[in-house]
Amino acid sequence: MAKFLTKRDENYAQWYNDLVIKAELAENSAVRGCMVIRPYGYAIWEKIQAELDKMFKATGHVNAYFPIFIPKSFFSKEAKHVEGFAKECAIVTHYRLKKDENGDGVVVDPSAKLEEELIIRPTSETIIWNSYKNWIHSYRDLPILINQWANVVRWEMRTRLFLRTSEFLWQEGHTAHATSEEAVEETERMINVYAEFAEKYMAIPVIKGYKSENERFAGALETYAIEALMQDGKALQAGTSHFLGQNFAKAFDVQFTDKTGKLDYVWATSWGVSTRLIGALIMAHSDNHGLVLPPRLAPIQVVIVPIFKNEEQLKSISEAAERIKAEFEVKGISVKYDDRDNNKPGWKFADYELKGVPVRIAIGPRDIENKTVEIARRDTLTKEIVSMDDSVLHISKLLVDIQENIYRKASEFKKQNTFYIDKWDEFVNIMENQGGFIMAHWDGTAETEEKIKEETKATIRCIPFDAPEESGKCIYSGKPSKRRVLFAISY
Amino acid sequence: MAKFLTKRDENYAQWYNDLVIKAELAENSAVRGCMVIRPYGYAIWEKIQAELDKMFKATGHVNAYFPIFIPKSFFSKEAKHVEGFAKECAIVTHYRLKKDENGDGVVVDPSAKLEEELIIRPTSETIIWNSYKNWIHSYRDLPILINQWANVVRWEMRTRLFLRTSEFLWQEGHTAHATSEEAVEETERMINVYAEFAEKYMAIPVIKGYKSENERFAGALETYAIEALMQDGKALQAGTSHFLGQNFAKAFDVQFTDKTGKLDYVWATSWGVSTRLIGALIMAHSDNHGLVLPPRLAPIQVVIVPIFKNEEQLKSISEAAERIKAEFEVKGISVKYDDRDNNKPGWKFADYELKGVPVRIAIGPRDIENKTVEIARRDTLTKEIVSMDDSVLHISKLLVDIQENIYRKASEFKKQNTFYIDKWDEFVNIMENQGGFIMAHWDGTAETEEKIKEETKATIRCIPFDAPEESGKCIYSGKPSKRRVLFAISY
Repeated sequence: MAKFLTKRDENYAQWYNDLVIKAELAENSAVRGCMVIRPYGYAIWEKIQAELDKMFKATGHVNAYFPIFIPKSFFSKEAKHVEGFAKECAIVTHYRLKKDENGDGVVVDPSAKLEEELIIRPTSETIIWNSYKNWIHSYRDLPILINQWANVVRWEMRTRLFLRTSEFLWQEGHTAHATSEEAVEETERMINVYAEFAEKYMAIPVIKGYKSENERFAGALETYAIEALMQDGKALQAGTSHFLGQNFAKAFDVQFTDKTGKLDYVWATSWGVSTRLIGALIMAHSDNHGLVLPPRLAPIQVVIVPIFKNEEQLKSISEAAERIKAEFEVKGISVKYDDRDNNKPGWKFADYELKGVPVRIAIGPRDIENKTVEIARRDTLTKEIVSMDDSVLHISKLLVDIQENIYRKASEFKKQNTFYIDKWDEFVNIMENQGGFIMAHWDGTAETEEKIKEETKATIRCIPFDAPEESGKCIYSGKPSKRRVLFAISY
Repeated sequence: MAKFLTKRDENYAQWYNDLVIKAELAENSAVRGCMVIRPYGYAIWEKIQAELDKMFKATGHVNAYFPIFIPKSFFSKEAKHVEGFAKECAIVTHYRLKKDENGDGVVVDPSAKLEEELIIRPTSETIIWNSYKNWIHSYRDLPILINQWANVVRWEMRTRLFLRTSEFLWQEGHTAHATSEEAVEETERMINVYAEFAEKYMAIPVIKGYKSENERFAGALETYAIEALMQDGKALQAGTSHFLGQNFAKAFDVQFTDKTGKLDYVWATSWGVSTRLIGALIMAHSDNHGLVLPPRLAPIQVVIVPIFKNEEQLKSISEAAERIKAEFEVKGISVKYDDRDNNKPGWKFADYELKGVPVRIAIGPRDIENKTVEIARRDTLTKEIVSMDDSVLHISKLLVDIQENIYRKASEFKKQNTFYIDKWDEFVNIMENQGGFIMAHWDGTAETEEKIKEETKATIRCIPFDAPEESGKCIYSGKPSKRRVLFAISY
């Protein structure tokens, strides 16, 4: 199977697509731009959801659910939001089909036209703030800390599995606060949650920072983002957290009485990550053999493959395998024993490599004799023989090692591909030929940002929180600058 | 708060609606027929999801995700399905908005009309079987045991929170099998899973049975259902499992090579439960004080309310409360300590009764002196004083008792309101004046079924699996019948 994978260095985009399809993560559907997330891909999403949901709840949030439909007029209420989101979207205009009188199919019933069209949510600020209006009267009703797990639709013209699809799954947090300070604190808290999740679970190092005005969420005063570097040198925005100020409260007239009895508009944040994270996970770690999954998000952490020539051998191997499997399960490690007889061990090895299972155990007749097992690591593709009795303990430590090693490797890659550049021709050269993160000075104007994008396709991914103050000259205009910002070509 | 609840006996429908709104479970949204599921209501759904998901996985199923959009032509492929589902549905006809040239809003861009309209899924058989076509070639690819957690839309004219809304949340299982027997077995397995869930978790006794042809799922050869009796004597269909035969495989041309090398169409099932279960949960157990939640699905199982007059008292009560809380958490019991000072204990008591928290602990200064706590059960509204040291152990047993008691009470109600009737005037009288389940003979014709519905509003809820064979005469036509079927007026 893996041999049909396009080589990563030959055609990165094709390698990615092959991998998503062949590892059975997702595929295109009959509906343009919409994907089917297959069970193995969805199992990764379930792992992501479970961990993030815990983190959201640990920071005081609760889940709720708001309608998928947004009345068209809601979009016009927040001036910038309408420009950002009321464009490419799916619009419901009718609510009934009827039999086609001229054929055997069905047609839209023209008499069932909606008075006001409904938009399938591209994001839910408007419908949610319309509800918050009824929930918030006094400072005692605040804060509201709500998250929603949902599907959203943005009518994308060029789609790529997981990275950009017309429908995708995500979570969107929408919080309401009595003060600006509290809302800013929340915005920061959540970008930190995302960064922690990316680093600890996805094993992807990220850069946290502010978005430039150009790249801000439509309706936000400030957007914070985490940016990750993929193996082809492109950046992927992996999560955003927005300080919305009082924009949505004003648009939907949500006021509250503060402690002093004064009426004020409510302060808001919103933040989200999506199934795009699965795309990031694939692109950050995988290789020519297939997926490389960090153990903490791997649906199957350990697979056991028996190597046998007859039923008798299989029987004694199965006894050992089931014993080991039970030990793993006690430790909460997910393990699969693959004793199917329709595929050869070699085929299975390649298939589990393709699927990124972190550890593979092979047990053959000689292992039974010697009381050993063969262990293969997916990240390094190395093998070792260990005593059967020690194997579970050994592997539970190994999974921790693998998680760390994958993160270390990604961090090393990021380090080697982050460049501090002061000359325009070097900037152009890097962007044209190798990609990567460039830390460079910028004069702070949208005009310069736009020109750099036109000439190199690179955009300002973020203004890193931790960029030290240093005086310099804009890489493009030569005008004075106080700190470097992060440039890259992005997904 | 609870005092504003309409009395259950005075106006059941209003009582239900008041309860949903005032317990903050859900509310109507700005979009006709669509509800907002508020955090407390959603927390119940999360509990339901978690338990069902475990049961699905324990029976070999995996989750996946398919597009929300279904091309219009897909509906015409299965003849009966199109009649059942391609009627009241949300239809996407355009994919872009543009600025209104005559105003400051947005309008649908007429140039962005879809070539083929997309239907928001009312159920996903068609889009899923269109994918299965590519996944299934040989008997080795079978069975496919997939479940999806998703939102669906059916354009309902008369909506009621949780019971019938245009958009609702559900799970839909879609399985593919090599033989008819296997598919039938799966259909039965899943109705049994639903029945077990209803009885063990929701504390609602149900009757399992076949649907009559009239009431079958559009496209199914056989529909199994679980039917529950609500406190107003109406039936609520709480879950269905469909044996689809080869209908969808034929409609989407899904064939496989069996073990003998012969080509055959694949056999299918589908099964689902929805947020309607929350409506069932409310209507089966609740009373004039509010919700009564079975402990296994209660988001908060125990609430601790301090009774204090000054800070010093609160301090010593809080120490005891936090100690007890920690003990509960070790046992995996969800507990809330409500030390808010903006509401009086009496207000809190009424509020937690309204919200159906199974056990309330009150701790006052005298309790601290005596090392006791006051425990109140939501189901019986009785109180007792127990020693503080024994309280956690006592309550962990009490929660089991409450779960059983709620189930017992609902079972008793069902028993008292199930009638074996042989005379038409008695049938009419019961349906008109008190409602309930009626077990009566039926001649097996759709015509009689239709007439009974016209005259009494009662429908055949199901033909119970366990109805013994007995000869009798149809309650309406007097024609011979072999077994009694279950009649009721349904939600």
